[in-house]
Parts: sequence; structure tokens; C-alpha cells
Amino acid sequence: MENVPQKELDQRIENFQSVLVRENLDGAFIMQNVDVYYFTGTIQSSILFIPADGRPILMVLKNIERVESESNVRDIVSINGRSAMLSTLHRYGYHQFDAVGLEMDVLPAYLYRWFVENIGECRWVDITPDLLRLRMIKTSYEIEQIKAGTKILHKGYMEIKEVMQAGMTELEIDAHLSLVARREGHMGLLRMRGWNQEMTYAHVLAGESGSVKTFLDSPHGGTGNTPAMAQGAGFRRLEKNEPVGIDYGVAVNGYHSDQFRTFVIGELNGKLEKAHDCSRKILETIQREAKAGTNISSLFAIAEEEAKTAGLDGFFMGCTEERAGFVGHGIGLEIDEYPIITPRFNGELKEGMVIALEPKFVFPGEGVVGLEDDYVVTSTGLERLTLTAQEVMRI
Amino acid sequence: MENVPQKELDQRIENFQSVLVRENLDGAFIMQNVDVYYFTGTIQSSILFIPADGRPILMVLKNIERVESESNVRDIVSINGRSAMLSTLHRYGYHQFDAVGLEMDVLPAYLYRWFVENIGECRWVDITPDLLRLRMIKTSYEIEQIKAGTKILHKGYMEIKEVMQAGMTELEIDAHLSLVARREGHMGLLRMRGWNQEMTYAHVLAGESGSVKTFLDSPHGGTGNTPAMAQGAGFRRLEKNEPVGIDYGVAVNGYHSDQFRTFVIGELNGKLEKAHDCSRKILETIQREAKAGTNISSLFAIAEEEAKTAGLDGFFMGCTEERAGFVGHGIGLEIDEYPIITPRFNGELKEGMVIALEPKFVFPGEGVVGLEDDYVVTSTGLERLTLTAQEVMRI
Repeated sequence: MENVPQKELDQRIENFQSVLVRENLDGAFIMQNVDVYYFTGTIQSSILFIPADGRPILMVLKNIERVESESNVRDIVSINGRSAMLSTLHRYGYHQFDAVGLEMDVLPAYLYRWFVENIGECRWVDITPDLLRLRMIKTSYEIEQIKAGTKILHKGYMEIKEVMQAGMTELEIDAHLSLVARREGHMGLLRMRGWNQEMTYAHVLAGESGSVKTFLDSPHGGTGNTPAMAQGAGFRRLEKNEPVGIDYGVAVNGYHSDQFRTFVIGELNGKLEKAHDCSRKILETIQREAKAGTNISSLFAIAEEEAKTAGLDGFFMGCTEERAGFVGHGIGLEIDEYPIITPRFNGELKEGMVIALEPKFVFPGEGVVGLEDDYVVTSTGLERLTLTAQEVMRI
Repeated sequence: MENVPQKELDQRIENFQSVLVRENLDGAFIMQNVDVYYFTGTIQSSILFIPADGRPILMVLKNIERVESESNVRDIVSINGRSAMLSTLHRYGYHQFDAVGLEMDVLPAYLYRWFVENIGECRWVDITPDLLRLRMIKTSYEIEQIKAGTKILHKGYMEIKEVMQAGMTELEIDAHLSLVARREGHMGLLRMRGWNQEMTYAHVLAGESGSVKTFLDSPHGGTGNTPAMAQGAGFRRLEKNEPVGIDYGVAVNGYHSDQFRTFVIGELNGKLEKAHDCSRKILETIQREAKAGTNISSLFAIAEEEAKTAGLDGFFMGCTEERAGFVGHGIGLEIDEYPIITPRFNGELKEGMVIALEPKFVFPGEGVVGLEDDYVVTSTGLERLTLTAQEVMRI
């Protein structure tokens, strides 16, 4: 098992401290497990205080031996609760604050109220948008983790091609993909940051399942096998000559890889083939035209234009008013990271961003076809990280 | 796919409204997906307002057709954001509030701040403890779902008994258990309420992996295969004559079932056998002595007493100062529900509670042995829901 390299952690904290200085904050409390991991290399229960200037303090609520074996933060202190956190801060010379950052999108209300009540007069600032903008630029270490995941995904797709038969349930396909994922080292769950958002390893969507919507911010959802989960594979059996869309995700050392391929046992009809071709064309066009410096909002326009040219814009990224308003998203320690590839996301592509582009077409009652691949942004273009051929997978 | 029966939902809302009246609240906003599902039968993105008196209003942010097909709440209204929620409330005659409940343990700070800023002067009360105390009493419908899960768990244990061999990795065992879970209809993830708590389907802990602690509030943790997840199965290979502890969970229609069995390829040494016997004796004693009306705090004492009698109290529920302070927990729509079987939990066992009892012994460097089974509390005793024999599973 590998720890996160020390220089990664140092660099991340240094970058974050520049943000704190720019935003005129005294520091920030980092408490969500993923964010703590990003800065320290451990997800053991801890409260991390990063001052704008000076060394971070990692205050550990449980299991300090494991923290010390996983993290190279220099100031690691064992505390038995939040009151002890305050006395620890005092010991380090932090007695009062003017303005402090918190992760307002994920911090539970009771903790927010605790901070407001227990730390004197202070301006509380949502630090998440800044933090997510830092996290969207990946180092070569981070890109290596995502690449390791794409190998697992490719293996899964190749194995399932041998296994898939008409009459199997969506869940049987999902089950086999889960097996491959874990056997090969997927860490065991996919992390989403959005509140109430959650995801199974794979979405296996046969025929009309592909056009069943759900709460997920995604062009497809699926029935699932219960309204309590309401997404992904269900007990529907695969039939011949229908699209079977498989969205497959894994995480290696915390980093997510995310792919979609369209399978068919037999043949797709001409319209679905055309839509799949259009998905490929969208990826090819974006790959040809995008690189560091490209305006992010322009990518969605490129995709939509291709869909229009093919006469398929009514089915692009969904087939109702509630279609997904994006054609891709960042991936990293969470599967729903910045940048979001929408017309509304401000900013340019930057070197080191890793994005999943997922042009898909949804036909009511018929299903979903399309592709999803992961790319790293370079100064000269987009380099594809996912390994599977961009074709319909025919059984 | 089955919807939650209408009378379940009606009863739950009625019970909750009694609580609102008792607590002198005007109503509560329910927003976490699991709680919304509990009251409405859908987890589509919605805000549920339950007044102390009158009909609940389910305000749907996305996908209202699916909500209407899953939920029988009578007042379902489509809204396009939180401002529309306010105007909807006005339309229903709710113009101001004196005191309102929120799920403070899970509601993100930004939403809490939105309520405080957008609804006039009002007392905001954490409604979660009351809600969890309602949810801990299960109906026969709910118990049926948990029973369906225990069948999957039993199937998984029986299949893995045929598959397990020395030399396999923990992850290969986990992979096969994941396959069985999904194939048989596990909904695809385990839900934990506690912030930053998360769990893979199975913990497969061979030898010393069983004594590796983690952030999880559990007697065992495991290495996992990365510090980014830091729990459960890793790449360690199974050896002969060592304990292989397998904690296995699934969820059917949202309801969790949770079990632990100790496997061995070959033989356990006398001390480990004795500890396993003691785990069984603890379950037998609790099952003999506990029923509706039994003080919950007494169950832990029974368990600890048995461990002491066997001279094993130094290893009971962990082997360090940070041992787990409980011997069981409620299960339901989340795997970490009330009641918690600790010396500190106030209250009596009540008919319809479903609890997972998990007496385990952890030996540093050697591993974990023990049992976990699910029970429903009746007026005459505890009825076991899990199906697997309470023995060491010998290969």
C-alpha cells in the first residue's frame, strides 16, 4: 500500500495557503474525509487546521498510530473532542480569528453551529469553491492513479464482453463488473461530493432502462431494483438488438476513472448507430480542437453543434426538458469534480485538468447510446486515458 | 419493483406529527434522501415539508413523473429551486414560523444558512434524534425487507465457503461476495448516517488484518488497499490456520442486513476457538435474557460479563483503549441506526426494534473472531433473522 508522496502534500498545502492569503482569511478548518485526505494523505477522523501562514495542525480524534503511518504532516496532535481542539489551537498561539474558511457544502449544520457558538466573533467563509478549483489541476502522480483505474475499467469491459448473453439480468452484468472492480483493486466505493448524490459501481441499462431518469445529475439513470436506490441495474433481462449502455467507474488510491460503452447482442438500428457515430465524432472534434487555453464553455457548444448537424439534438444528453446540461465533468478524488463542461462554467482548460467527456443520446423507450472517456488536458491537446476502442461493443 | 405501501407512509407521517406537536414545532423540513424516502417512498430530489398539523407537501426539484409513480403523498408540487419552495409554502398558507425542525446532523451548512437567511425569525431545532427514535421501531413490512437481505447474506457465505482457498487475496473474496450481493438484488451500496463514515459491502480480514483499526466506529477495520479508503479487504493473501473474519452487508429496498462470520482454512488455535465460543455464548445469553422491556444498557453488561468469565475481556470489541464501546446497533434504512447497544444508551428494548449484535474478539497480530447476527425484538424475546449457523466456517 502506497502513501501519498510528501511533496504532493506540501505543494497542495502551499497552493491552498496562497488562496487563504488572497481571500484574506486567517485559515481554514478542513474536516470532510476527502479534503482531509487531499492535504494529509490520511482519512482517519481528524480536524485539519491550515493557517494562511505557518504549519498546518492535524488534530486526530481516533487512531493516531495509523495517521502517523499514513501522513507526513509534521504537527499531528491527538485530541478527544472538539473542546480539545480549541485548547490545542490556543497552545499553538491561535486565540481568535477574524475570518475563517469552512467547507460549507458538506459540513453538517450541527458542526457549523458549533463553530459559530464556540469560536468568538468571526466571519465564516465557504472555502469549497476555491478548494475545488485547486483540486481540478492534477499532478502526474494523480494522473497515474486515474490511469491505473482505466486499466481496471478496460479489463472489466473485455471480460463482460465474454460473459454477456441475452436473457441475463442487468444485475448479473453489474455483479460481474463489481467482481472485476474489487478483484483488481477498486477501493470499494465511488465518492460523490453533491449532497444526496450517490452512485453504484456500474450503470447497466438495457433497452428502455436507458431512458429512465433519476435524481442523479446524469443523462441517464436507470430503474435500479428499488425506489430506495432508483438508479443503475435492475432485474430487467437483456434482449437481442437493443442498446445496453454500461457506465462503469472505479477508484484507485482515491482517484476515480469513469467510462461508458454501448454494447449490443446482435445489431443496433440505423438511428442508434448514427447516434453512436455522432458521439464518437463529438469526442474526435473536441479532442482536435481543445487544449490548455480553450474556453470550457465552448466544448458544450462543439458537442451540441455536432448533434444538430446529425439532426439528433432533440436526443442529446437526454430527451426531455430535464436533460443534463453538461457534456462532461472533472474527475479526481470525487467523481463529480470541477470543471463541469457546461455553457455556464467560467474559465479555460488548464494543463493537468482531467475530464470525463460523455456525449450520449437518449431515445425514449429505446435506450441510451454513446461514449464516455477520460482525458488529461495538455498544452497541445487532450490525451485520452481510457483504453477501450471507441466502438459499439458487439456480442 | 415494489413501492412502499401507502399505509406505512401514512403511519410514519402520523407518528412524526405527534412528535412535532409534543416538541411544540410548527413543522419540519426533511431533505436527506433516506429521510425523504422514509416518509414518501421516493428518493428523487425533493424537499418535504411536514407540518405539525395538516398534509405534508413534497416539493420536487427534478423528475416529478418518477416521484408520482413511487410516492402516494397527495400534495406533490414541482419547484425549480428553493425560492419556489418559499412561494409554494405561501400558497399553502405557511407565511411564518415560530419553531421548525431540521436534520442538523446531515443538512449541509450552506442549506442551513439559506434557511436562516430566507425564512424570518424562527427557532431552528435539530429534529434528527426524534426522527431516529421513530425509525428504530420497525413494522412487519420493514422486517420483511431485512429478512430478504439475510437470505442474500446466507447465500454469499455458503458460496464463499466453496470458493475460499489459501493463497487468494482478501479482495478476491470480497469480489465474489460483491458479485453475489448484486446478482441477488442488493441495491448497490450501504448507507451510513454518520458524517465521513462509509462502508464497503464486505470486510474480509485475514489474520492480522483483523486487528488493524480504522476510523470506522467498529471493533475491526482492516487495511483496505489504500489509505484513501483504509478499511476492509486488501491485497493480503489468505493463509492456513488463521481466522478470516467476514463482515457482510446488503440492502434490499433500502433496508440493511448485517452479518459477521469467522472462517478458517484448517484449524484455529485454542485461544481463538475459545473466543469464538464466547461470542456464541454472549449471543445465546442475550437471546435468553432480552426481550421488549429489557434495559438496553444492560445488554452490554451481559456481554462484558461473559467475556470476563472467559478471561477474554482484554480483547473484547477491540484490544486497545480505542475499543468499540458497543456490542450492537440498530439496522434499517441506514446501517448505523438506533438503538446503539452501549452502557450509555437510554431506554428499553421495544417490540419491532431490529438490532445487529456483534460480539467480537480482537487479538493483536492474530486477527478477529466472533459473530454478528440480526434480531427483531418481540414481547417474548429476540427472534434471529440471520440464517447462517453460529459456528466457525471451516474450509
